[in-house]
Amino acid sequence: MSLFAVRAPEDVSLDDVAEAAGVSRPLVYRYFPGGKQQLYEAALRSAAEELEHCFAEPPDGPLTRRLSNALDRYLAFVDQHDAGFSALLQGGSVVETSRTTAIVDGVRRAAAEHILSHLGTQEPPGDRLRLTVRMWITAVEAASLIWLDEEKEPPLDELRDWLVEQFVACLVATAARDEQTAAAVRAALPLESADGPMGSLARRVLPVVSDAAHLL
Amino acid sequence: MSLFAVRAPEDVSLDDVAEAAGVSRPLVYRYFPGGKQQLYEAALRSAAEELEHCFAEPPDGPLTRRLSNALDRYLAFVDQHDAGFSALLQGGSVVETSRTTAIVDGVRRAAAEHILSHLGTQEPPGDRLRLTVRMWITAVEAASLIWLDEEKEPPLDELRDWLVEQFVACLVATAARDEQTAAAVRAALPLESADGPMGSLARRVLPVVSDAAHLL
Repeated sequence: MSLFAVRAPEDVSLDDVAEAAGVSRPLVYRYFPGGKQQLYEAALRSAAEELEHCFAEPPDGPLTRRLSNALDRYLAFVDQHDAGFSALLQGGSVVETSRTTAIVDGVRRAAAEHILSHLGTQEPPGDRLRLTVRMWITAVEAASLIWLDEEKEPPLDELRDWLVEQFVACLVATAARDEQTAAAVRAALPLESADGPMGSLARRVLPVVSDAAHLL
Repeated sequence: MSLFAVRAPEDVSLDDVAEAAGVSRPLVYRYFPGGKQQLYEAALRSAAEELEHCFAEPPDGPLTRRLSNALDRYLAFVDQHDAGFSALLQGGSVVETSRTTAIVDGVRRAAAEHILSHLGTQEPPGDRLRLTVRMWITAVEAASLIWLDEEKEPPLDELRDWLVEQFVACLVATAARDEQTAAAVRAALPLESADGPMGSLARRVLPVVSDAAHLL
C-alpha cells in the first residue's frame, strides 16, 4: 500500500513489493497469483475502506463543523496518497478496469450517503438534493487532483474552508428550487454561529452583491 | 462516429464500422491500420472538436445568458452522444489510454478558458477563480452522466437553468474570499436583469436564509 501510495501503479513492480515486504517474489505470487493487477486491486480495496472511515462523523453540532472534520480526514488521505491518488483518478492507467472503477464509485456513493444522512431529511433525499451532493463530491475530487498537481497550494485548512463554503453555496442555490433542500438548510441554520463558516461566508458575500438591488 | 455515439466502444466492431460506412473491412484497415483503437481515437478527436465549438459564444449580453447558450449546446451534444459519452467518461473502458484521457482533458481546458475569457478579468485569472471554474466544469460532467443514467430527467432546460444557478452560487462564494472574483461578479451584475437567472435565484434564496440574522 505504501508503494502504490507514492508511485503510479505502472511504476511499481512485483520485485519492489517483495523487497518492501521483506519476502521473496515467489511468496508474493503465492498470495497474489493474479500478479500486480490482483495486488493493486487488493491495495485499492483496503484504501477504499480506510477512506470510507474518514466520512464517519457523529451527527452533532453545526453541519459545517461536521463537514470540516470529515474533509480534514479526507484531505489528509489525499496528502498521504498523492501519486497513487492522482494515478487512480486521472484515468487511462494500465491497471484501471471496470473493477477498480466500481471500487472508486463505491467510495463516492458512501461519501454521498454520509452527507445526505447528516442533512437529516424526513423523507428519503430527492433527485435534486442527491445531485447537488454528488456534484459537490466530484468537485472535491477535482479540487484534490488540482491541489496535488499545483504543489499542494493553498494550505490544506484554506482549501478545506473554501470547499465547505462551496458546499453551502451549492446547497443554498438548490434550496431556491427544491423544498426538501430548503427545509434542510432552514433546519441547519440555527446550529450555525456568526464565527463559523456560514457566518463568515454570509458577511463576506453581502458587500459583493450589494449592487444587486435591481435583481429583486 | 454515429456508432461510437450510441454504443460503448467495446460493443463496436470493425465489421460494424465497415458496414455502416458501406465499404469493405480491408478498406477500413487501409485507412486505420491501428484498427479499432485508432478509429476510436480519430472519432474522439473529431467529437472533441465539435464539442469545443459548442463553447464559442459572443462576449455580449448578461453572463448568465451566454453560459445558458453554451450549456444548451453542450447538453444537446450529451443528449446525442449518450452511450458513447458515458463510456468515455466513466472510466475503465478498454479503449481508454493516456491519449484518450489527454483529448478529454483538452476539452475541459478549452471549456475553462472560454468561461474565464467571458469573466473579463483585467489580470490573468488567479488560482481561486481558475479552480472554481474547473470544479464547476467537473460538476457539469458529473451531472451530465447522472442525467443520462437517470433516464434523462429532469428536462434539459431545467437542468441547464439549475447548472447556471450553481455556477453563480460557486462564483459568489469564491468572490467572498477572492478580490479578483469579486470584481468579476460586480462587473457582471449590472448586465443581469430581475427576470433573468440571477434575479430569479436571488429572490428565491432570500426566503430560505431569512432566519440567518444571527450569522451577521
